[in-house]
Amino acid sequence: MDLSTIIGLGSGILLFVISIRMGGPLGSFYSASSIVIVLGGTISATIVSYPMNQIKQLFKTVKKTMSKTNFSSSEIINNMVSFSEKARREGLLSLEDEIANLDDSFMQKGVQLVVDGTDPDLVRNILETELSFLEDRHAQGRGIFSTMGSYAPAFGMAGTLIGLIRMLETLDNPETIGPGLAVALLTTFYGTILSNLFFNPMAAKLKVKSSEEILLKEVVIEGLLSIQAGENPRIVEEKLKAFLAPNERESFNKNTEVNENEAA
Amino acid sequence: MDLSTIIGLGSGILLFVISIRMGGPLGSFYSASSIVIVLGGTISATIVSYPMNQIKQLFKTVKKTMSKTNFSSSEIINNMVSFSEKARREGLLSLEDEIANLDDSFMQKGVQLVVDGTDPDLVRNILETELSFLEDRHAQGRGIFSTMGSYAPAFGMAGTLIGLIRMLETLDNPETIGPGLAVALLTTFYGTILSNLFFNPMAAKLKVKSSEEILLKEVVIEGLLSIQAGENPRIVEEKLKAFLAPNERESFNKNTEVNENEAA
Amino acid sequence: MDLSTIIGLGSGILLFVISIRMGGPLGSFYSASSIVIVLGGTISATIVSYPMNQIKQLFKTVKKTMSKTNFSSSEIINNMVSFSEKARREGLLSLEDEIANLDDSFMQKGVQLVVDGTDPDLVRNILETELSFLEDRHAQGRGIFSTMGSYAPAFGMAGTLIGLIRMLETLDNPETIGPGLAVALLTTFYGTILSNLFFNPMAAKLKVKSSEEILLKEVVIEGLLSIQAGENPRIVEEKLKAFLAPNERESFNKNTEVNENEAA
Amino acid sequence: MDLSTIIGLGSGILLFVISIRMGGPLGSFYSASSIVIVLGGTISATIVSYPMNQIKQLFKTVKKTMSKTNFSSSEIINNMVSFSEKARREGLLSLEDEIANLDDSFMQKGVQLVVDGTDPDLVRNILETELSFLEDRHAQGRGIFSTMGSYAPAFGMAGTLIGLIRMLETLDNPETIGPGLAVALLTTFYGTILSNLFFNPMAAKLKVKSSEEILLKEVVIEGLLSIQAGENPRIVEEKLKAFLAPNERESFNKNTEVNENEAA
Amino acid sequence: MDLSTIIGLGSGILLFVISIRMGGPLGSFYSASSIVIVLGGTISATIVSYPMNQIKQLFKTVKKTMSKTNFSSSEIINNMVSFSEKARREGLLSLEDEIANLDDSFMQKGVQLVVDGTDPDLVRNILETELSFLEDRHAQGRGIFSTMGSYAPAFGMAGTLIGLIRMLETLDNPETIGPGLAVALLTTFYGTILSNLFFNPMAAKLKVKSSEEILLKEVVIEGLLSIQAGENPRIVEEKLKAFLAPNERESFNKNTEVNENEAA
Repeated sequence: MDLSTIIGLGSGILLFVISIRMGGPLGSFYSASSIVIVLGGTISATIVSYPMNQIKQLFKTVKKTMSKTNFSSSEIINNMVSFSEKARREGLLSLEDEIANLDDSFMQKGVQLVVDGTDPDLVRNILETELSFLEDRHAQGRGIFSTMGSYAPAFGMAGTLIGLIRMLETLDNPETIGPGLAVALLTTFYGTILSNLFFNPMAAKLKVKSSEEILLKEVVIEGLLSIQAGENPRIVEEKLKAFLAPNERESFNKNTEVNENEAA
Repeated sequence: MDLSTIIGLGSGILLFVISIRMGGPLGSFYSASSIVIVLGGTISATIVSYPMNQIKQLFKTVKKTMSKTNFSSSEIINNMVSFSEKARREGLLSLEDEIANLDDSFMQKGVQLVVDGTDPDLVRNILETELSFLEDRHAQGRGIFSTMGSYAPAFGMAGTLIGLIRMLETLDNPETIGPGLAVALLTTFYGTILSNLFFNPMAAKLKVKSSEEILLKEVVIEGLLSIQAGENPRIVEEKLKAFLAPNERESFNKNTEVNENEAA
Repeated sequence: MDLSTIIGLGSGILLFVISIRMGGPLGSFYSASSIVIVLGGTISATIVSYPMNQIKQLFKTVKKTMSKTNFSSSEIINNMVSFSEKARREGLLSLEDEIANLDDSFMQKGVQLVVDGTDPDLVRNILETELSFLEDRHAQGRGIFSTMGSYAPAFGMAGTLIGLIRMLETLDNPETIGPGLAVALLTTFYGTILSNLFFNPMAAKLKVKSSEEILLKEVVIEGLLSIQAGENPRIVEEKLKAFLAPNERESFNKNTEVNENEAA
Repeated sequence: MDLSTIIGLGSGILLFVISIRMGGPLGSFYSASSIVIVLGGTISATIVSYPMNQIKQLFKTVKKTMSKTNFSSSEIINNMVSFSEKARREGLLSLEDEIANLDDSFMQKGVQLVVDGTDPDLVRNILETELSFLEDRHAQGRGIFSTMGSYAPAFGMAGTLIGLIRMLETLDNPETIGPGLAVALLTTFYGTILSNLFFNPMAAKLKVKSSEEILLKEVVIEGLLSIQAGENPRIVEEKLKAFLAPNERESFNKNTEVNENEAA
Repeated sequence: MDLSTIIGLGSGILLFVISIRMGGPLGSFYSASSIVIVLGGTISATIVSYPMNQIKQLFKTVKKTMSKTNFSSSEIINNMVSFSEKARREGLLSLEDEIANLDDSFMQKGVQLVVDGTDPDLVRNILETELSFLEDRHAQGRGIFSTMGSYAPAFGMAGTLIGLIRMLETLDNPETIGPGLAVALLTTFYGTILSNLFFNPMAAKLKVKSSEEILLKEVVIEGLLSIQAGENPRIVEEKLKAFLAPNERESFNKNTEVNENEAA
């Protein structure tokens, strides 16, 4: 899990614990039945909304997507440029040796297609189809979190209504009105916090992580097609560097110089 | 109906029954007139919103779409690859014998068009038109549920307003205020639960099921056009496998090996 | 007006009348001034939002669009197929005699263009421009209802605020608080019902009716262009039948058999 | 300013004045400080949201866009058809004399480009770029009103919160609770009315006016390109009439007959 | 920071300070713990939603984007036209001397590509890729503000719920109810003001600034490609002037006359 998710969640929870603690004991903000209503309702509705296999994959996708990406865009561009140089010197077939060294199955598949002499249009077609399905799977995972983010406040309100209705039935003892209402409002509170500190932010983070991964794959596709077209390695580099943000580009230039020295 | 829908709905209803039961008798949460207002209002508004024939088809579409899909993407890809091999060996006309064995009318129609020697552009045109209408019909069914999901809370609130206005007219007896308000809030509670545990989740599930079915049909279209173009069976398989998620692809590879052994 | 609109509106109104009547006299839910605020405010805001000529056309468009469509898609396909056969036998010019028998001005115009020997690209261009303007006009009418559906609850709330502010100024007599609040809440009730039982459902129904009409016109365009291209009547029929839903297709097949017998 | 805007705003304001007056003196609904909070807050937030030059242009754009369009689509089509006839008789250069008579700078520019013998693709390119920027400017003006329509209720609520918090601090005197709450609710009332009777309807009207103007410009572009291509004046007329709504088309036919008589 | 942002924020804050001050001491509207809950919650949720590097870049992007753009569209068009004249007179290579004088890295890169004799399609490809990533980065920064604008009211409500629940637990002392509720409502007030006076308006301003910068870059791309194609400087000017709003165009004409005099 990347650091900002942990820091954000941790500081958010700490913040509310302290805020609540400042006004009195924490205990009065804990209600097992309220948690069961909000979380249970949200999860039940989510199970109705999505097929089991998607919900099961959720944890896997989330874990994978929330972890630090294992290689950077500058690394990929360097790979592509060096492949391009090798292909120019020794021919496209020489790239076959590199496939085993790659730890990304998408890149492996792409290089294999190029080595096999597949038609460039078909290479693009196959890789972009794969990319668009990857995008769909990411959108699914994200969609589940967004959906939970909209169910949680609704079931929070449903729980408050249950408490409210119970309390209103027995108005004879005025001393119980306050505490009864307090407990009823707890589910709304839980629903709001769950939705705005966890579900919605997780959906947002998944979106950012997804577009980063998609971008890397697009760099791979553009790079492979340039290599297959036998373009000049400098043009390949120029083309792919356009995918970088200005600050990444600077750090890239530094890295490549190092790499070029190493390569030399 | 697929399992997750039943499990989700069941656990959600159970959850609320238990939550309510824990605070007192269930009876005070049952109000026939509240149910009539929320459900009746929602259904009336839905009848104004959609023509009768679409509402009638709703149950059929839902039943069909919620049931387990009867054949999987790997099965379809296997079909396509074996058709591709047969067409290469024995010519496109040999596929005519297969039509009767197919239990999907879309696939039957597609193979028939290919066997008839229809122009590839026209084949794509006809099948994609059909697919886009299928998509429209799915969107209709889903739209009805979404619409109901937005009407239910509104009529819940309308019912609460009716109860509230009645109660406020006769404030002379303070003892009836609480119970009156409790009954008034019941319709809002029903509206919230109906919308967030049933209508909206059903619309979400229909969307997932629809895109799964659309995807299978797209695999069929791509496969048939590749067969018609006389492409190599291995290319056909490679192209179609791009439609699979990575985990499906692994299980597909296992299946095909089995199939190839059987075929051998 | 098609049946479902009448049934839906009628049952919805009946439902609320009965629900209200069950709790006491209907009279306490009638307030002329509340109706004036909600309806008057909504209509005023709509007049600011749209030019007079669009608002005037609204009733006409609604009446026309809500009425039962006077001929079905299968009838249009039959027409197109028979035109196609006639054009093949006797030449495109022979279709000129049919124009007078057509009761749809769009179809008349299309056949006239084909008979005049207009360039196919221009035929498509002219008919699609016309279709897209028809779509725009439908979207306008629908937009007015959606807009009213969002204004009605807002003016309902504004009316409640007026009542509330009045009531709060004169809190000295506690006996008037309840009834005052009851009257104030009436405008919110009216706004909710108007929006969710009338304006929003009407906008939804207009959308369905519009897409049905657009679809029929698309069938006409595709059919006319196929006829002009001299395509085989069976291909024309196959192409156009792709526009039908499966259940319509079955009933179409029955109809055509009857027609073919009659034609024979 | 076109009539419907005045009528709608006038009748809306009158309606609320009468509704308020019926329940008591108008004075208790007037609060200078509430107006300052709602309007001041909305304007401040709008100034943060948009650069000064766009806000300054707002009044100009609004005034121009809300005024009655000075010439109609049928007039423009007649112009185009007569230009087309003149160009056919006397050559494209003869249109140069007409430029001075045109009072629309867009049309002037278009005719000038055609007279200059500019390449048709470039003519379309330049005019459509201009049109898309006109659309952007309209969207900006509309966007400012929509934004104000969403800020006004928010600042209305903020004002109510200020009043509420003040009132709650000094609960010792129960007689002031009612009037205090009444004043607090006034800002919410102002925000609702401003948003739903003025800002949102103005944004809607601007959208309609904008699409009308865009449509006229599109007629001009299509017409000029047809003239440049030397198309038959009857085809030009047929093409451009597709842009008209059916009822406008009828009135157009009457007008042209008159014009043709005059021209004869 | 451009003037309107400062004026808007300043006047908005002043307005609320005065409004609050008019009713009593400012002190009762200050609550450190409320500020901590709203701002802390919003920031925590934002940290979960976005990766650290994007949040860090936020201040930089905002500062850069909110500052006055350092050169205007008319200046850029003049540059392009003079480059076009120079390229016609002395050849494309002569533009190399100009690169050092340019203070915009995007324009430098573009001119360099043209001077290098890069294929026009590749020039467009590289520059548009860069532009689309610039757009993405702007959208990110804007997205963070929008997200904060939706979190702030939610955490405002969460804070109010905390205060409300605390207060309801200890209803025994009726004198503390009012002040307790007042403090509880403060967080909702803070959330509303933060969202509607700061976060949402900042997101809106960023959008305007972004589209202005994108437009300038589009002018550069179109200009460079026209120069590379060796188009007539007058055509280049005409093409690029279509990007200007009418009022900018007038001021541009004045400027160019001055420039042309200077150039002469």
